[in-house]
Amino acid sequence: MSELSAESGVPVATIKYYLREGLLHDGERVSKTRASYDAAHVGRLNLIRALIGVGGLGVQEAKAVLDEIDGPPESLHELIGSAYTRLPPVVAPAGAEPDRALELLRELGWDEAIQECTPDVAGLDRALRAVEAADLGLTRADLIAYGRAMEAVAGTEVAATPAASLTAAVRYVVLGTVLVEPVLLSLRRLAHVEESARLLGGGG
Amino acid sequence: MSELSAESGVPVATIKYYLREGLLHDGERVSKTRASYDAAHVGRLNLIRALIGVGGLGVQEAKAVLDEIDGPPESLHELIGSAYTRLPPVVAPAGAEPDRALELLRELGWDEAIQECTPDVAGLDRALRAVEAADLGLTRADLIAYGRAMEAVAGTEVAATPAASLTAAVRYVVLGTVLVEPVLLSLRRLAHVEESARLLGGGG
Repeated sequence: MSELSAESGVPVATIKYYLREGLLHDGERVSKTRASYDAAHVGRLNLIRALIGVGGLGVQEAKAVLDEIDGPPESLHELIGSAYTRLPPVVAPAGAEPDRALELLRELGWDEAIQECTPDVAGLDRALRAVEAADLGLTRADLIAYGRAMEAVAGTEVAATPAASLTAAVRYVVLGTVLVEPVLLSLRRLAHVEESARLLGGGG
Repeated sequence: MSELSAESGVPVATIKYYLREGLLHDGERVSKTRASYDAAHVGRLNLIRALIGVGGLGVQEAKAVLDEIDGPPESLHELIGSAYTRLPPVVAPAGAEPDRALELLRELGWDEAIQECTPDVAGLDRALRAVEAADLGLTRADLIAYGRAMEAVAGTEVAATPAASLTAAVRYVVLGTVLVEPVLLSLRRLAHVEESARLLGGGG
């Protein structure tokens, strides 16, 4: 185990914790006090660290994501629905009827998203109410533009999903959600820096 | 203060805490034990709750955002740079040289973003490394497509920024970052549900 710790850079105590919580599978026992770990363990540890460190998940949330990846694969569409029901939603949903979100989804023509009604519909609703309360002056057209931009992103992603193997697809969808979200948000902020210099001047 | 609490739905103890920490300005003192609060206090409380509840900020982070909004306005471009230096970055930057991020930004042609080098460049780098380590199979073309989609989003947003008043612009940029991020991520997840039904079938 100390070798695994050295190779992965994860402290022994943390590895033991992940083993106990079932995030990492046991090594092959070679004697009463020694177990053997292989490249799969190193890969798994990297993945756990990425989910927690970059994805910002808690240990139990990371376990739910890993369970989803390890579980028996369903159809890709069912999989996306079930992943989004198990993953922590972007925003914790509030109690109110999500009518702001449903209205926007109807205008976008996203009937499937309305029908499945994952926790993200309620989360979107809460986020929209916050934008409204802050009086940001976002118009209906701005919100539709956001929807179309995300449709373009999701369209590319779904088309790129490996069709050959559902196991690969699960991995792609679930990890793609958690790990790609920070990429998109960082890019949006950097694009603001870029566009504000380009359109309004004042750079350099 | 109990009236302010009733109107805003925020407990008295929490209001006192915000006053003590300087997130909320004092009411106008009308007697030794009573102060008068107005609509501005209710609006400010809504804003604080939105930053903490929907934006996911801690109290001190919310204070930094509010300080940015209250501070003397600079040029819009400088403002965006300084806001992104003060706001908590999407991903906590790691120590490594951000060469993955810089390479992508160069390919996108985002020279201003490279030059300003806000903490989001290092955050993007860490997020890219996590995607790589998880072996998601995202191609260079996929990353460029993400960049272009976010460029479209940011372009609309910068163009919509109120030019008339810098104070309004500050408000728009800083709150737009914190409050719109959850809207975008929720929409991406819901677009996945939608697109997977449309392209791959299996819905209903």
